[in-house]
Amino acid sequence: MSGKDEQPRSTIFDIDKTNNFPDWFGEICRVAELADIRYGVKGFTPFPPWSLMTMDNMFDILEEVLQRKDHLPMLFPTVIPESNLTKEAQHVEGFVPQVFWIQDTGEGGKLEERLALRPTSETAIYPMYSLWVRSWRDLPMKRYQRCSVFRSEIKSTRPFLRGREFLWIESHNVFATHDEVKAQVQEDLETTKEVVTDNFGIPVMVFRRTQWDKFPGGLNTYAADTLMPDGKVLQLPSTHDLGDNFARAFDVKFLNENNETVYAWQTCYGPAISRIFGAMISVHGDNKGLRLPFKIAPYQVVVIPIYKGKDAEMVLEYGKNILKNLRKAGFRVYIDNSDNTPGWKYNFWEMKGVPIRVEIGPRDIRDNKAVLFRRDTMKRESIDVKDLKREITNLGKEIDANLLAEAESKFVDLIIDADSIGTIEDALDKGKIARIPFCTTEMEGKPCADEIKDRTGGETRGTRIDIDEKPKGVCTVCGKPATEIVYIARSY
Amino acid sequence: MSGKDEQPRSTIFDIDKTNNFPDWFGEICRVAELADIRYGVKGFTPFPPWSLMTMDNMFDILEEVLQRKDHLPMLFPTVIPESNLTKEAQHVEGFVPQVFWIQDTGEGGKLEERLALRPTSETAIYPMYSLWVRSWRDLPMKRYQRCSVFRSEIKSTRPFLRGREFLWIESHNVFATHDEVKAQVQEDLETTKEVVTDNFGIPVMVFRRTQWDKFPGGLNTYAADTLMPDGKVLQLPSTHDLGDNFARAFDVKFLNENNETVYAWQTCYGPAISRIFGAMISVHGDNKGLRLPFKIAPYQVVVIPIYKGKDAEMVLEYGKNILKNLRKAGFRVYIDNSDNTPGWKYNFWEMKGVPIRVEIGPRDIRDNKAVLFRRDTMKRESIDVKDLKREITNLGKEIDANLLAEAESKFVDLIIDADSIGTIEDALDKGKIARIPFCTTEMEGKPCADEIKDRTGGETRGTRIDIDEKPKGVCTVCGKPATEIVYIARSY
Repeated sequence: MSGKDEQPRSTIFDIDKTNNFPDWFGEICRVAELADIRYGVKGFTPFPPWSLMTMDNMFDILEEVLQRKDHLPMLFPTVIPESNLTKEAQHVEGFVPQVFWIQDTGEGGKLEERLALRPTSETAIYPMYSLWVRSWRDLPMKRYQRCSVFRSEIKSTRPFLRGREFLWIESHNVFATHDEVKAQVQEDLETTKEVVTDNFGIPVMVFRRTQWDKFPGGLNTYAADTLMPDGKVLQLPSTHDLGDNFARAFDVKFLNENNETVYAWQTCYGPAISRIFGAMISVHGDNKGLRLPFKIAPYQVVVIPIYKGKDAEMVLEYGKNILKNLRKAGFRVYIDNSDNTPGWKYNFWEMKGVPIRVEIGPRDIRDNKAVLFRRDTMKRESIDVKDLKREITNLGKEIDANLLAEAESKFVDLIIDADSIGTIEDALDKGKIARIPFCTTEMEGKPCADEIKDRTGGETRGTRIDIDEKPKGVCTVCGKPATEIVYIARSY
Repeated sequence: MSGKDEQPRSTIFDIDKTNNFPDWFGEICRVAELADIRYGVKGFTPFPPWSLMTMDNMFDILEEVLQRKDHLPMLFPTVIPESNLTKEAQHVEGFVPQVFWIQDTGEGGKLEERLALRPTSETAIYPMYSLWVRSWRDLPMKRYQRCSVFRSEIKSTRPFLRGREFLWIESHNVFATHDEVKAQVQEDLETTKEVVTDNFGIPVMVFRRTQWDKFPGGLNTYAADTLMPDGKVLQLPSTHDLGDNFARAFDVKFLNENNETVYAWQTCYGPAISRIFGAMISVHGDNKGLRLPFKIAPYQVVVIPIYKGKDAEMVLEYGKNILKNLRKAGFRVYIDNSDNTPGWKYNFWEMKGVPIRVEIGPRDIRDNKAVLFRRDTMKRESIDVKDLKREITNLGKEIDANLLAEAESKFVDLIIDADSIGTIEDALDKGKIARIPFCTTEMEGKPCADEIKDRTGGETRGTRIDIDEKPKGVCTVCGKPATEIVYIARSY
């Protein structure tokens, strides 16, 4: 796995994540071989095996949930003809500034029409949906694709969190009614919770975004935010009620049961796995490096044989046997039989975030024992080797539950009720999220949000939809009667 | 699954595949919803669920084999800076004419350096390998990525077989010695056989390509050809001995065990899953539509409940129970409980190529029976429902073996020994492959191959490496002493 890092040089990782998060993030990407920023094109980074294998596991979990909820996979071209990209007016405004354009080919060739690298695929997919959807019998049509998308406008890039090319799944659904759209939005939010929180251990708060912060061309955007170690929030999956806007722009119509031709209703949902990976390592990592959840770690268990001289063969044999048995039981296991010292190996695989380490030496073998080390708490215990499978199964679950609990503890006392620009700023400076009564999240409220942004650096994340909140009093900024409660946070 | 095609209109597919292959191929892509050519950009086609799900299964099998053989997955950016793309002279010549170029961004922005959509990723990956490979301890480095690639020069496009964007895996390996490169080429050829032939049922012949037909920048190319229903051959995976050419161009060096800095040796291997999918449906399909191998079919089994009036509930219940049990046993199963007639459903799922159909009606339920229908031979038999799992397991294996055997039967008497341009042409006109003694596959032999191509439309596919053949006599074209035996075929 590790290639050059198996060479005997120090691998002790030690950076204060909480107080020095940007350094921590950059260094762990480099040392754990997650992303290589030396590729030479701004915002485009190769993903070496350790991150790609983890993201593949994350994709698999997400795809299993989507398929279980009756979405079918499909795949559209990477390029979108300019005439399609520019069919929906608000969408043009939102996405055209982000586009990479292709016009030249080979040595001096020119395409008749410019092609955009997809920044998102509504304008690729919906012209085909207009051909595929014909009658109520075709609905609901729930489909998704797993692909890269490309956005040129991203200026300040960072691996995983802000890349010009990123990896995601985009789900595009068509329904007969607006009610079904609303139910799909709920389903998507539950999918987010099941995948991001229950499987990856990342707690989120869910907001309906303001009208000035919604998906270009849609009616409403619902998004999950998580909290990063530097106190800023990061948007994770968002799902969009597109109403019938895109159906009208792309002519997605169907014959209903009364034999009338009517426009369809649509949703789209875009979990960006590379970004969620960035959040996952940031939320769970500690000063010693990565801490990967058991469910998604490329190697869930690393076996370290410990021996000197004459014991070598016996210990190695014993280790390989454990490897074989654990693999047969379905675990992802690696044995590190390089010639580095056990101490070097401990540090290396701790930095890489492998959830469980099995240490075996001559004495363990004699006693039919093995030592289990868990990365999350850095604790070890000696167990009977016959219980290995069961213990690893249980420990894996325990580790994942513990990582989530630790992450959730950061949400305690996170929200501070503010009643002025000054108290908002105080809250944000402490790494907290401010909650305020607010005039409106319709477009008329934008000046108030702009003023908050200018004076505190905080962004208006919208209104909570996972809890029911009623405002009292007046808008903290303009003094008009408050109609909503909104949350203010600094963000990525 | 089927969306609009579940409406009660005729779904009887009936096209003579052997005598009318281009029609057969175009129609099956349309009717079975494999690729939609109405996207509006030449050579770029959306893949609806039925093809994408099959290709996902094909990717999974290939990735399992690669990982078992110690390749690790990684992912590089979709774009390559022009300065890297043009570093290896022969590679430039081969690939620059094929490139889609990106220079413009957003509304009037311009990139400093043009970016190519990757036509293949040597020039993306090897600059990073030059940083990642440092010592003999890092070798071998065996890695691969699963991605789309883009080639603009492809003029006459056809879904799957010749697309401007296609799906593949490219494996890129670095070794300390040229001997290891040769061993890797063997391993890749075995992988091709295991995946393409043993799993997908597609027989191949393996050639060392001529020097004028090799990978641009490499030393030698080894490729598998299969036979299409129209008598033309189609190249399936090819693997390349790159020697140390790319290592020299991209400075991939390492410190060997004697502490000397030396250039590394490399291979690359590029199984194009979308093209193999195109070959797979062509080889196995029949006049009634697709015949998908059990191993890779999106639905391995479709359950058709047959009932009238009062039996509906009971039959449906029984069908869903079968569905649940088969899914639990790990099969990919679908139940078609749409309101179409059983006859419609039979035709539809036969056209879609589902390997096994389970038919159940009230009488079957009473007798604890079910009818099993196999798509490959169109035969049905009644079995005890308690044996369903076992029978499906066995039948699945039988179907796959039978599809391969049928495909292999096309290879019998395929090769005709020719001794003149005229006999070569006769052989090709009969859909055969001509075998001839040939002067040389070094560059000096190219005029002879060109003459064959001009006069017969046949291409020189190279020398067989799966069997040992010694030439007698003189080159069929120039009359010089023959040094090799080569094969001539019309090709895609």
